[in-house]
Amino acid sequence: MRWVLPDHIQDALPSDAHQLETLRRRLLDAFRVRGYQLVMPPLLEYLDSLTTGAGQDLKLRTFKLVDQLSGRTMGVRADMTPQVTRIDAHLLNRQGVSRLCYCGSVLHTLPSTLTATREPLQLGAELYGHAGIEADVEILRLLAEVLRLAEVPASRIDIGHVGIFHALASRAGLVPGREEELFDLLQAKDVPELQNMLADVAEPVRGALLALPALYGGPEVLAEARARLPQDAGIGALLGELQQLADALADLPISFDLGDLRGYHYHSGVVFAAYGADSPAALALGGRYDRVGEAFGRARPATGFSLDLRELVWRLPAASAMAGGVLAPLEGDAGLAEAIAHLRARGEIVMSALPGHEGTWKEAGCDRQLVKRDDRWAVVPLQGE
Amino acid sequence: MRWVLPDHIQDALPSDAHQLETLRRRLLDAFRVRGYQLVMPPLLEYLDSLTTGAGQDLKLRTFKLVDQLSGRTMGVRADMTPQVTRIDAHLLNRQGVSRLCYCGSVLHTLPSTLTATREPLQLGAELYGHAGIEADVEILRLLAEVLRLAEVPASRIDIGHVGIFHALASRAGLVPGREEELFDLLQAKDVPELQNMLADVAEPVRGALLALPALYGGPEVLAEARARLPQDAGIGALLGELQQLADALADLPISFDLGDLRGYHYHSGVVFAAYGADSPAALALGGRYDRVGEAFGRARPATGFSLDLRELVWRLPAASAMAGGVLAPLEGDAGLAEAIAHLRARGEIVMSALPGHEGTWKEAGCDRQLVKRDDRWAVVPLQGE
Repeated sequence: MRWVLPDHIQDALPSDAHQLETLRRRLLDAFRVRGYQLVMPPLLEYLDSLTTGAGQDLKLRTFKLVDQLSGRTMGVRADMTPQVTRIDAHLLNRQGVSRLCYCGSVLHTLPSTLTATREPLQLGAELYGHAGIEADVEILRLLAEVLRLAEVPASRIDIGHVGIFHALASRAGLVPGREEELFDLLQAKDVPELQNMLADVAEPVRGALLALPALYGGPEVLAEARARLPQDAGIGALLGELQQLADALADLPISFDLGDLRGYHYHSGVVFAAYGADSPAALALGGRYDRVGEAFGRARPATGFSLDLRELVWRLPAASAMAGGVLAPLEGDAGLAEAIAHLRARGEIVMSALPGHEGTWKEAGCDRQLVKRDDRWAVVPLQGE
Repeated sequence: MRWVLPDHIQDALPSDAHQLETLRRRLLDAFRVRGYQLVMPPLLEYLDSLTTGAGQDLKLRTFKLVDQLSGRTMGVRADMTPQVTRIDAHLLNRQGVSRLCYCGSVLHTLPSTLTATREPLQLGAELYGHAGIEADVEILRLLAEVLRLAEVPASRIDIGHVGIFHALASRAGLVPGREEELFDLLQAKDVPELQNMLADVAEPVRGALLALPALYGGPEVLAEARARLPQDAGIGALLGELQQLADALADLPISFDLGDLRGYHYHSGVVFAAYGADSPAALALGGRYDRVGEAFGRARPATGFSLDLRELVWRLPAASAMAGGVLAPLEGDAGLAEAIAHLRARGEIVMSALPGHEGTWKEAGCDRQLVKRDDRWAVVPLQGE
């Protein structure tokens, strides 16, 4: 059957497509008036530039292709963030702050969950060139605003800090390769295995790493973290950054989770995940990734977030794609063309009645029609169907 | 160098991306108010459904991938028209007219010309369910309107008719496979080879096929065609259709070319190509392809056109992505937040001045700033840069 699509791949039919387009415009407009400039990186790049700084799982999720022009391996993008970082680092070459945004399809070889699409419509915003916490505050506020505009407000924004993990892991003096294993155990909150792995690590680092999975909750968690984590090696300053976020964003539903490192392949500092009211899966992920730009020749501070627009639309109530079109006769006097142009200029949908039409015009999306009455063209309810 | 892109693949940086987005919205809005509903088919499909009804060259231009879930071969779409036809035929299942439109990236393994991109941003409109010439008239008018809205008006719209070629070729009684060869020779307007190939074909078909390459020009060509082509086997009726187009579209710069069959892989009737003022390459291609739907289980009349939005934007004068942003202090009183919200609601770009900024704010796109004067926040020219 030629019309069957691969699993986890779908069409957006008129009602979904209309909602996607409406939301896309609303969110890109919100980015624009805040100074975020739109960029459109390509679907295809050489594989090494697409997966720069990214973890192994992103590499596995990237479709590979051979370039017939160069013989080199290309990939279809599975994540647009490294592409936008490449644009900031190399093409724009600005000294100060760059605010960039994007919206485009990405492809995954395998779906990330049982219900996920393999073609997310990734939308995101990135702020380059500013290392201070003010940039993280701006990005977190922007994320909350975007979800509000999408009518899927965040019920919780979980904030973590990869820097705290990195500082503790480096003090633990693990043999190379073990840090990634530790990362995985923390991500899985597998405390028994963590205890095994950390048996030979000295205090206070051992206790601190074991404490991370339990350090989650409201802003009061930060006081607990100051009590249970060593404050040297920069950890005190990192907790101070989180406290600044807690203070600056007190009106948002933020919480902290110092053991949550999920999906943060290339992140280096503050990380976050936003959740909706009725779903265990995150609606948006983001954070700081100051080191990715290095691979493109310029180390620039960077923070941002991205989300899948399709996921947002699937949470909205279904809408009709056509809010009542107007049927117009195919031919008429000069007044007809004028009446049609006038309606369309107001955003009304006006379709021509092609002769010999076999369905109903209601099926085609009309609920009104243009008729001539008393020498004037008027819109009246659709008749005779 | 990790920031080098494959040949014939490009980023759209802020100024191009902004123009692409502006034009995308303007054209999709023009489709919408005429009753064309947006659909978004996927980037990936099983190869056999992507290339249904298409010629060999589209198959060669399609990137192939293996589906890790099913083991089947998938393709990345190289043309969205067959996808939209699949949606009309199978998913919408309407009895009457369906008007559909789309805009999305497609990928080509090799560029179609020396200067073409391998990632066109394909935009198009398709009208299904109506076999009459009125549908072709509507689509041709829509194409002219789209190019006008894009500020790249058509200087010439060349119209041909694949049906005339098919009728003559079938009367020529060629052995199987030779029809395609004949098609290629006509496409190349290779008259000497045509004469060789048609040496054994009887008159009047031989003379008619040899006449096709010379039948181009204004509407007067149709009278010449009636004189030089046999009128039986439906050819008279097909020429009559072209005459109806000439009459209905007399205000557009249309011309006829009965020997031009370029790129019409799946077309069956009226075909056309629109050209801009200063370029030998077509800006848009389209026509009737009534038989493609059969492969999806429903034969439906179909006509439409598509174009590459990137090509249109490359013809526009370069524009600045940011029409003068306003710089706002990071912190201020309640009046500041209000002033910012007010400006943004009017569509103004207002960016926060992050502390420690290293470039100029002009570089970031600002030409004005918000300052407090006499107890009020006011927009003044950017100072001190």
